[in-house]
Amino acid sequence: MKTRLARPLGLAVALTFALGACASNLGGRPAPSPHATLSSWQPGATRAALEGFVARVSDPESPDFVPASERVAVFDNDGTLWAEQPAYFQLLFAVDRVRAMALDHPEWNNQQPYQAVLEGDMEALAASGHEGLKTLLAVSHVGMTTGEFEAQVRAWVEDARHPTSGRPYTAMVYQPMLELLEYLRAHGFKTFIVSGGGIDFMRVFTEEVYGIPPEQVVGTSIELRYEERDGEPVLVRLPELSLLDDKAGKPVGIQRYIGRRPILAFGNSDGDFEMLKWTAAGDGARLCGLVRHTDAVREWAYDRQSKIGRLDAALDAAVEREWLVVDMAQDWSAVFPSNDAGTHD
Amino acid sequence: MKTRLARPLGLAVALTFALGACASNLGGRPAPSPHATLSSWQPGATRAALEGFVARVSDPESPDFVPASERVAVFDNDGTLWAEQPAYFQLLFAVDRVRAMALDHPEWNNQQPYQAVLEGDMEALAASGHEGLKTLLAVSHVGMTTGEFEAQVRAWVEDARHPTSGRPYTAMVYQPMLELLEYLRAHGFKTFIVSGGGIDFMRVFTEEVYGIPPEQVVGTSIELRYEERDGEPVLVRLPELSLLDDKAGKPVGIQRYIGRRPILAFGNSDGDFEMLKWTAAGDGARLCGLVRHTDAVREWAYDRQSKIGRLDAALDAAVEREWLVVDMAQDWSAVFPSNDAGTHD
Repeated sequence: MKTRLARPLGLAVALTFALGACASNLGGRPAPSPHATLSSWQPGATRAALEGFVARVSDPESPDFVPASERVAVFDNDGTLWAEQPAYFQLLFAVDRVRAMALDHPEWNNQQPYQAVLEGDMEALAASGHEGLKTLLAVSHVGMTTGEFEAQVRAWVEDARHPTSGRPYTAMVYQPMLELLEYLRAHGFKTFIVSGGGIDFMRVFTEEVYGIPPEQVVGTSIELRYEERDGEPVLVRLPELSLLDDKAGKPVGIQRYIGRRPILAFGNSDGDFEMLKWTAAGDGARLCGLVRHTDAVREWAYDRQSKIGRLDAALDAAVEREWLVVDMAQDWSAVFPSNDAGTHD
Repeated sequence: MKTRLARPLGLAVALTFALGACASNLGGRPAPSPHATLSSWQPGATRAALEGFVARVSDPESPDFVPASERVAVFDNDGTLWAEQPAYFQLLFAVDRVRAMALDHPEWNNQQPYQAVLEGDMEALAASGHEGLKTLLAVSHVGMTTGEFEAQVRAWVEDARHPTSGRPYTAMVYQPMLELLEYLRAHGFKTFIVSGGGIDFMRVFTEEVYGIPPEQVVGTSIELRYEERDGEPVLVRLPELSLLDDKAGKPVGIQRYIGRRPILAFGNSDGDFEMLKWTAAGDGARLCGLVRHTDAVREWAYDRQSKIGRLDAALDAAVEREWLVVDMAQDWSAVFPSNDAGTHD
């Protein structure tokens, strides 16, 4: 999860509460295109740049050819592969977890920041500040075993609904990016997520939603402790950060998990700037891309002034370095998977 | 690298010095069998157990069938995929690096533990103890960029020779295990290393030697810091441990890097015990194996009393739980790749 979460949380909680309890039918998951074409990308310079790069690095006759084993492509998640408004989805998970856990914690009714979440009291929640936010994240993310946490995330992914669209969160993914992931894999790339989001949170759904298996997910992680409970080994999630996979932490995460430099990287915010610079600085052909949120009708429009997914310094650099800036409004013929074709519900 | 290195270092350094400087021809790298058969495994119960398990989990008609995406196999490295005598090879790398770096450090001629290494003075080195060892490891492993370290390891892998066999270290790998890795991959498994050795040390050679790419290597790691030097991004290796991937650290490393539980795990020492227990505790068909060093003629014979690769508690457990114990002397028709077929020099 990226930093500076306090303000978005207020908005998110307000919206979550305004929409009331979630329905509990199964979560929708878009299937990647079997034909591996960029059909939701408008014909034009952006699509041509993607297709041209992939052709250059995968054609053995090309001077820019890169062996398949080195065709590593990394993608940010929040705002790059799925939406991040009105708040990072993992934060909405934390809020939902606190509400679910409250049944076993009657004392939370009179204890901040829990009381604020339970009563939808935005003023009180804002007053709890960064410490309040940390408390909500801690209570929903640490202390349990990895197996318990996975089950909690899985249940949330299936049941929870996005506050404005009413769709499962896993249907709030970008259809053109699903196609790009599949297109890259069809051309021998190995696709990875490199996100500020929690690694074990994302791993629950990335394989089904993006075709990216758990071992190709890099994210913010906490320390774990091995224990044996009645002879049964468990891993316990500890309140100690192992990697903050954002900004300068992204190249660190790439080296820690992947061990070689990507040749393609996509992000959408200043949190991805160092990852893009790290990718660009390698030898040979490189593609660095930014998804720019320009579509207030089909998605959201925000960049330089946004509290979530602020895109400012990296946007200036993209212009200067001729990185690929994807304009959602202009470049994408569809934003989300259609209800019919793309989801299971 | 596993713990308790002080004693083996003395022996290793003695042997390294006894054999003098290394030749500098290219390092040999065995190619995995293209036919993916276990031809260096003697016919018998051990080989049958491996073949039977692989058949059961990869046959869609079998009640033990496991989808390919979940066919995760993990292997310890030192003593399981390559030899670990007379000392962990990474420690011999550290010694060789100190000798190479001494040209730029004339002060080391009068400073312990460097002086002991440079003069081959075993008594002085032993007197420097655990702190001396840590100093040698630190000076050879931290402070440089990831790119510089990779180049140093690569040069060592090409030039250095094993003190008793005179072969490249990457030729000191077990032919039957190369065949097993290839056999598993031919049956849809994804193969990983989970080793106490340094992650970025191993990654230099694992793809060429084992067919295991850098992103499928889990190992002991240190913290990294992102910097920009004259506009060029670099990652600097810091003197701070990120993960000690040994004993209880192995299941932690598996969760951190892979994010799902293996169905097959192979080790050779008590350092692998928790990894084996973690693997065994999952649902469905499982195979846990131990390589037992029983061959004093072709390799080395050691287990319960050894300072390196001690196999004691895990061996008792293996008998009790019916894990597969591979007896090198009995079960392997060849130990190392032949000079002709297996290496490039």
